[in-house]
Amino acid sequence: MSLTVVGSVAFDALETPFGQRDKILGGAATHFSLSASFFSKINAVGVVGGDFTETEWDVFRRHSINTDDIEVVPEGKTFFWRGRYDYDMNTAHTLDTQLNVFETFDPKLSENSKSAKFLFLANILPMLQKQVREQCCSAQFVAMDTMNFWISSMKDAVIETIKVVDCIIINDAEARQLTDEPSIYKAAKKIMDYGLKAVVIKRGEYGATLFTKDGYFAVPAYPLESVFDPTGAGDTFAGGFMGYLAAHDKVDDDILRRAMIYGSVMASFNVEKFGTERVDALDYDEINQRFRDFKRMTHFDDIPFERASAA
Amino acid sequence: MSLTVVGSVAFDALETPFGQRDKILGGAATHFSLSASFFSKINAVGVVGGDFTETEWDVFRRHSINTDDIEVVPEGKTFFWRGRYDYDMNTAHTLDTQLNVFETFDPKLSENSKSAKFLFLANILPMLQKQVREQCCSAQFVAMDTMNFWISSMKDAVIETIKVVDCIIINDAEARQLTDEPSIYKAAKKIMDYGLKAVVIKRGEYGATLFTKDGYFAVPAYPLESVFDPTGAGDTFAGGFMGYLAAHDKVDDDILRRAMIYGSVMASFNVEKFGTERVDALDYDEINQRFRDFKRMTHFDDIPFERASAA
Repeated sequence: MSLTVVGSVAFDALETPFGQRDKILGGAATHFSLSASFFSKINAVGVVGGDFTETEWDVFRRHSINTDDIEVVPEGKTFFWRGRYDYDMNTAHTLDTQLNVFETFDPKLSENSKSAKFLFLANILPMLQKQVREQCCSAQFVAMDTMNFWISSMKDAVIETIKVVDCIIINDAEARQLTDEPSIYKAAKKIMDYGLKAVVIKRGEYGATLFTKDGYFAVPAYPLESVFDPTGAGDTFAGGFMGYLAAHDKVDDDILRRAMIYGSVMASFNVEKFGTERVDALDYDEINQRFRDFKRMTHFDDIPFERASAA
Repeated sequence: MSLTVVGSVAFDALETPFGQRDKILGGAATHFSLSASFFSKINAVGVVGGDFTETEWDVFRRHSINTDDIEVVPEGKTFFWRGRYDYDMNTAHTLDTQLNVFETFDPKLSENSKSAKFLFLANILPMLQKQVREQCCSAQFVAMDTMNFWISSMKDAVIETIKVVDCIIINDAEARQLTDEPSIYKAAKKIMDYGLKAVVIKRGEYGATLFTKDGYFAVPAYPLESVFDPTGAGDTFAGGFMGYLAAHDKVDDDILRRAMIYGSVMASFNVEKFGTERVDALDYDEINQRFRDFKRMTHFDDIPFERASAA
């Protein structure tokens, strides 16, 4: 099945305790596509400026990502973000944001992108997300991201968009903010009640949780001793998750659970190097090795305790 | 196999957003014993004052906990702690601490308590923990707790005690404080290097993790919509963990994993009501039902992705 993502393509400048990069490929649609490309065909919809070079396009080409719907505005500049992480890698400190061509981003979907069975609406203006979703009439499973800025400035619009998708993938702070619920379990239930099939809550170093009508599934984070650069981890998670779903002809609880694991696997690789470097160079053996690591990290035998065995 | 715990027996006064109690049974050895009693024979070693009544002793009796080594100082008063929790249930605010008879606690172990194959050193002065451990020559598996106060005031003594036990069960802040390592994975490795067989790190609403030579095991927390009273959750976890181990004639990775689950199961019940109320009233069906819930919450099929299945 094919998969379409709509979102940002960007240049990032990053400072972390481990080093820095002045101008590297980034953006939600980039991280998502790269991750998803290991599992399914993927169409990326976005916009870049005349400063986007063959080096960047080569990353997409290497992973057979369809970039026909990434508009090029030759006289404009690509979205640029500069950020810093301190030793607490959980918080990005934004030093500079230049929206550039992304400021007036008006996603233009070809028939090919529109006809995808799976759609991911990365973090853009909620009204734009809704318009895109409505253009993709044959989409069977649509997921969305959002961010604190939209929730605080236009919560109603965010909720209107949630109502037309099947799944939301957000972090725990966003889930709490969206619902005014300190308990993420109550928050997830409230969000489910907008008519979703699944709510995925990303919890950084604590992993991720999936809520469906059938229940609750928790995945720990991969035990990395050091996180090198967390930029794009959430989108890389979403790319693995949606890419894995799109590789199957149905979405059921078992497949959603494995999609959570592949999302976690891909995110764990993403943070090991700067930007797209690590995922760009991945192979299937590494991916499946880490999938098996997750199985080992979480498996226990289903042997209930019997009092008779007590000494 | 038998199990001995050395630690506090106390009266607690609690205020939470859900209600309050003026004087209820508490203390590390109490919560631990009650939890462990569902899995194995348990000897509690502690001290109480003349204010300890039949109502409190009845709780121990109902669960066949051997209290021969709980010393009674008739002219003294039992350790008393008053605390408050706000909506953020992760932090206890201490309003009053009266050590009373616990201030000069000198654990006196009978031959029966000394001969236990499993021993848990709840949070007391590290030098006392070490003395108790050395008295229990035939113990096969010894675990300890500690707290931020001892780590900041006498880290060397804490480490000397760690070196004579097999397992430490602490929270993530304590693991970081003990090692000056922000990454709990690095922290756990450093602690393992003192010669431990297992390091268990409790992470509150995010569950718990087990580190052994064989690897890493992560358990999510049970998805409770509201935590009523977290007092004693850590000791209840330790009681389920050690009680389950003591019910078996060996300690291997598979049994440690299930012990982590039973610890989590017992802790999840503990926080549902005030003090010991919920665990006191538990039955095996409830315990094993929740064990199976943990299996459902974490299980996924071990089916690696094959590129051929990508559409």
